[in-house]
Amino acid sequence: MARIVQCVPNFSEGRDNSKIEDIVSVLKNKEGFKMVSYEPDGDYNRTVVTLLGDPEYIIDALVEFTGKVLSNIDMNFQSGEHARMGAVDVIPFIPIEEVTMDECIEYANVVAKKINLKYDIPIFMYAEAANKKDRVKLPNIRKGEFEGMKDKIKLENWAPDYGKAEIHPTFGVIGVGARIPLIAYNIDLDTTDTKIAGNIAKAIRFSSGGFRFVQAGPVYLDSRGHCQVTMNILNYKKNPIYRIFETVKMEAKRYQVEVTNSELVGLIPRDTLIRSLRYYFKSEGIEFNKEMSFDEITKYAIKYLVFRDFDNLKIIEANI
Amino acid sequence: MARIVQCVPNFSEGRDNSKIEDIVSVLKNKEGFKMVSYEPDGDYNRTVVTLLGDPEYIIDALVEFTGKVLSNIDMNFQSGEHARMGAVDVIPFIPIEEVTMDECIEYANVVAKKINLKYDIPIFMYAEAANKKDRVKLPNIRKGEFEGMKDKIKLENWAPDYGKAEIHPTFGVIGVGARIPLIAYNIDLDTTDTKIAGNIAKAIRFSSGGFRFVQAGPVYLDSRGHCQVTMNILNYKKNPIYRIFETVKMEAKRYQVEVTNSELVGLIPRDTLIRSLRYYFKSEGIEFNKEMSFDEITKYAIKYLVFRDFDNLKIIEANI
Repeated sequence: MARIVQCVPNFSEGRDNSKIEDIVSVLKNKEGFKMVSYEPDGDYNRTVVTLLGDPEYIIDALVEFTGKVLSNIDMNFQSGEHARMGAVDVIPFIPIEEVTMDECIEYANVVAKKINLKYDIPIFMYAEAANKKDRVKLPNIRKGEFEGMKDKIKLENWAPDYGKAEIHPTFGVIGVGARIPLIAYNIDLDTTDTKIAGNIAKAIRFSSGGFRFVQAGPVYLDSRGHCQVTMNILNYKKNPIYRIFETVKMEAKRYQVEVTNSELVGLIPRDTLIRSLRYYFKSEGIEFNKEMSFDEITKYAIKYLVFRDFDNLKIIEANI
Repeated sequence: MARIVQCVPNFSEGRDNSKIEDIVSVLKNKEGFKMVSYEPDGDYNRTVVTLLGDPEYIIDALVEFTGKVLSNIDMNFQSGEHARMGAVDVIPFIPIEEVTMDECIEYANVVAKKINLKYDIPIFMYAEAANKKDRVKLPNIRKGEFEGMKDKIKLENWAPDYGKAEIHPTFGVIGVGARIPLIAYNIDLDTTDTKIAGNIAKAIRFSSGGFRFVQAGPVYLDSRGHCQVTMNILNYKKNPIYRIFETVKMEAKRYQVEVTNSELVGLIPRDTLIRSLRYYFKSEGIEFNKEMSFDEITKYAIKYLVFRDFDNLKIIEANI
């Protein structure tokens, strides 16, 4: 099986289509990987790109991509709602298949070094690739943003991991990291009462005593006319989807509220679903075949987790 | 309603019955509070005393009790399996009824000051009553134990909260604190496979990603011939019993294992059970009356949480 990483570079332009197209052009139709999507956001003034494929090819393309961003964006004239510290703001590597986290950390360091050498842009390593404890969380590094980084980078404790202690005058700095996939997961409730959704969110989220890797809150969906518990799962191996789904169903009972559907936002690794399907198969005493096809995974995920708006292409590996 | 605290002083003698009886004699048949139990442990060489009642009366009795311990125990000749730093090792206050945590912190400080003034024993304040971050966790304070405290107390960072930086030569030091009740809770599984119990424990305990205030592990009960998930719930308000019980049932399904019973070790506040019974009543659409009698609470707790070895007197308030 091929070695596959997901890489999600974010760059600080989400409004000017000709610039955006020029930048992503160097990621289109390349050998060894696929650009699965690029999603510009005008309010954020930021575009999120999703790449999937062989890390060696992705690394070379990222260097070229950074050059394109450098020639298109001057951070002295950029503003938007999303916090940012560079024209390419972050480059996270995520292990998908036949690749370990340690290898992703290595890839992150390789691309960081190459970018720094070629363009003299300082790099901070973050998340699993962090070399210092206070660089694990990206917001810690990004605090002060492009405008504040000029001075921050000169502080003894904030010397960059690659490059000299001086921001690139038009580009700023980049955060390069490695992490496991985040799962954006929502559970639909047959109620319009946001308080109920809020109480259920409290039962499962870490900040109120719930599961360690779950962030959750209530939301009322105007277009659909019901509430949802919306969440990020920071570690789907430790906090598998089925456990959260079943716990929400259990909590909803006390309000006589039905859990009607659930949904995944963005792409998720096949393994996320396999871990949950295994639970349901074993609970029903059915033998579980983890080699099932994408069609079967999709069918059973819809059956057990009551997914809506779901198809094969939500599974990262089905896009390869 | 009367103001009620639980206070659980631990002293460092668990073998010599005449000494133990002499010490606890000053806590028997007193006005304003009740000694619910005292449990000597020979291996630990330690006795755990449980007092319930009016904090003002308990405070005065604790001063007298400390004097009795001082005249009976010389820590230079004491040893046992349980870590300890003083002849009275710890005095925690726990709010039960009509008493806030802040008031318990105040009571802890009052008794600490009185004991220090009368016997010149240095006091460290811990848990909710801690004045320094590294004194919140008792083991941090107790590290080094009686033998090491002689030097430790002279370190700048380890000056006691009450008294001078010198241990009492025969008594040592005391930790006085305030905390919410710990719930020691176990769930019986119809299996002899400790690995299954271990996997279920991992699903619910914080250290593996589970609920924030749950510590859990597997154990095989030789005398009963089955496994158990054994746990401490550090905050029963944030992690109510029913949620843990139902999550364990949900996880057990995948192993085709039955949850047969559950049990509470030691006394628990009425509120612990009320919070869980409310869930089951509301889930069944039955109106919940939180003023139910101890007999009713016991009946329903046995029904819904399948308690074994449970009766009214396990409820703290039923002892008052």
